[in-house]
Amino acid sequence: MTELARSPSAQPEGLPLEDLGTRLPEHVERTLAGYLAGRRPECAAVHPAFGDAVDTLTRFVLTGGKRIRPTFAWWGWRGAGGDPAGPAAEAVLRAVSALELLQAAALVHDDLMDGSDTRRGHPTVHVRYADRHRLDGWPGPPERYGAAAAVLIGDLALAWADDMLAEALTDPELAGPAAARARPVWAAVRTEMLGGQFLDSWAQAGADTDPDTAQRVNRFKTAAYTVERPLHLGAALAGAPAELIAGYRRFGADVGVAFQLRDDLLGVFGDPAVTGKPAGDDLREGKRTLLIALALTTARDRGRAGDEALLGAALGDPDLDDAGVDRVRELLRDLGADAAVERRIERLTESGLAALAAVPVAPPADVRLVELAHSATRRRY
Amino acid sequence: MTELARSPSAQPEGLPLEDLGTRLPEHVERTLAGYLAGRRPECAAVHPAFGDAVDTLTRFVLTGGKRIRPTFAWWGWRGAGGDPAGPAAEAVLRAVSALELLQAAALVHDDLMDGSDTRRGHPTVHVRYADRHRLDGWPGPPERYGAAAAVLIGDLALAWADDMLAEALTDPELAGPAAARARPVWAAVRTEMLGGQFLDSWAQAGADTDPDTAQRVNRFKTAAYTVERPLHLGAALAGAPAELIAGYRRFGADVGVAFQLRDDLLGVFGDPAVTGKPAGDDLREGKRTLLIALALTTARDRGRAGDEALLGAALGDPDLDDAGVDRVRELLRDLGADAAVERRIERLTESGLAALAAVPVAPPADVRLVELAHSATRRRY
Repeated sequence: MTELARSPSAQPEGLPLEDLGTRLPEHVERTLAGYLAGRRPECAAVHPAFGDAVDTLTRFVLTGGKRIRPTFAWWGWRGAGGDPAGPAAEAVLRAVSALELLQAAALVHDDLMDGSDTRRGHPTVHVRYADRHRLDGWPGPPERYGAAAAVLIGDLALAWADDMLAEALTDPELAGPAAARARPVWAAVRTEMLGGQFLDSWAQAGADTDPDTAQRVNRFKTAAYTVERPLHLGAALAGAPAELIAGYRRFGADVGVAFQLRDDLLGVFGDPAVTGKPAGDDLREGKRTLLIALALTTARDRGRAGDEALLGAALGDPDLDDAGVDRVRELLRDLGADAAVERRIERLTESGLAALAAVPVAPPADVRLVELAHSATRRRY
Repeated sequence: MTELARSPSAQPEGLPLEDLGTRLPEHVERTLAGYLAGRRPECAAVHPAFGDAVDTLTRFVLTGGKRIRPTFAWWGWRGAGGDPAGPAAEAVLRAVSALELLQAAALVHDDLMDGSDTRRGHPTVHVRYADRHRLDGWPGPPERYGAAAAVLIGDLALAWADDMLAEALTDPELAGPAAARARPVWAAVRTEMLGGQFLDSWAQAGADTDPDTAQRVNRFKTAAYTVERPLHLGAALAGAPAELIAGYRRFGADVGVAFQLRDDLLGVFGDPAVTGKPAGDDLREGKRTLLIALALTTARDRGRAGDEALLGAALGDPDLDDAGVDRVRELLRDLGADAAVERRIERLTESGLAALAAVPVAPPADVRLVELAHSATRRRY
């Protein structure tokens, strides 16, 4: 891609095949940086304040993030025979990088809806803009301006994700059949992600405690969006046979749910210094995770009304302090909810890996996808 | 298009050419209804609550609205030689209808950011969801749920606008060169619209009184988005020569700004029974329109500090009552601001029409675009 070719630290010609794989996040970031820099001038021409908004989005996109979605998409393409030294590789890299702009849109809007103050250890977009409003001594409520900026910057990321994908799909190597195969997957990943988010808000607002709802949120908000559909997108770009796509999707659905369950555990038991998120925020926000749903069900089944009440009161309490978070942790352990979730992560990872092993994945993607499944489900951050 | 072909009230074969033109809004609505109905099942499969969200979006899209953007895009295509009886017409109708999904996204998010209660005489999306929260007696703040639903439903409309356009562009009649010409215009219209919205929020929050800012907001938030780029999109689909595109864009920029200035006048002086918006809401929201900027400048130039203070206090006052709105109206008339805006509307309409007359527009679009310019700038709603 042009951005890589121009940059002095770009992938040099003749770099071993494997390097694009092991250094993939770096290539994704360079691709995103080039794309965002290319669009800044048209925004600065509207007004310098809108140019600043692009800078905010650029920092958000390039600071932190595991690039997990482009990584699964890339290896999905490789496993279906995509050649990293072939003529389509650069366009595929651009197409899969667009998933990170989609993720930026999801996070900026999610932080606003949840009222979260920090993300990846930095102030969230709505907080950053509300702070500027205060610093500049503007009239009116700073929060309203912060919310408007976050809505619009998220919208911009969502629109640009589409533009970036569309541009990649007009590359002569992808235009035509490959683009036609990729389009419905792209349509599905955005709709399912938004559906998962919608359901999550609905369940949180209605204090839904049905474990089936929590599982559906995991399936759509995380599994489909993070693993299953990215793999599918890569496979579609490569023209994979239906059997391989079906195997990828089973693998992606299971490993993706396991990934979310790990996230749920880290949200309560994780080390804030490692996760970058304050411990207990998931509890304060009232997130209806499977971890919580299982704990509530167990407490109810064992007739432990006091525990049920304690959990119910902690959930969604914005003033829950560290001691309160500790009490919830102890209770979850006591009810065996954390161990039950750990077991489920293990089972899902196993069944996902079995589905993957049953289909013909081209090396070295066969090995790399197994590694990715382990790192996504065993991570500490 | 399939939706029209299936529907009993669809455009019958052999309908006179002009009918797709004069009944265009109806065809746009049928196209949108078909597209939205086609996507409902995948959402209901996520969860019934998300199926409901699609119903909310569908009602929002289909209830009211002048379909002004698809109309300009359609006639832009016709004026560049597009044949309404030709094989590309149905795909073009789908492509231009996607602008209405973009508009739905813009309105749902705009209403949320402005805290507006009604739109087209009905409760806005965030208000509707907050009301449901209250009716169902859910715990927690109803407004937070309403805001989350509006963010996500707006996001869905934005994502689907892209999907609908992309689908239209894969039609064999448009795929290839026509699609490649349309893509950059689609990228521009979304970025400029969001830039205009961003600048509007920025100016409103910072109480900016610079008439240049108000003009830039008008140029990007309205003119480019409502007239100039829709015409450009239609022209690009038809493969118009550069000269015609340049003429369309000059026409669109002028008539589009005039359209916004008419909107500003209606926002203060319009009849709520006709506009569907409570009179004075623009004042209560503190909108920095050219009407207001001119009034403030005139008051300052004439040393009328009391008038300047009265206007400044009314602007952004959520509790401004009807008597207060009446006082502002009287003041604007007294300062000649409404007459100045009327004159500017007239001049812009004239210069826009002159730009249009200077380029070869195919009949009957040449006549129809003149009519559209008049109805957009002289309307009462």
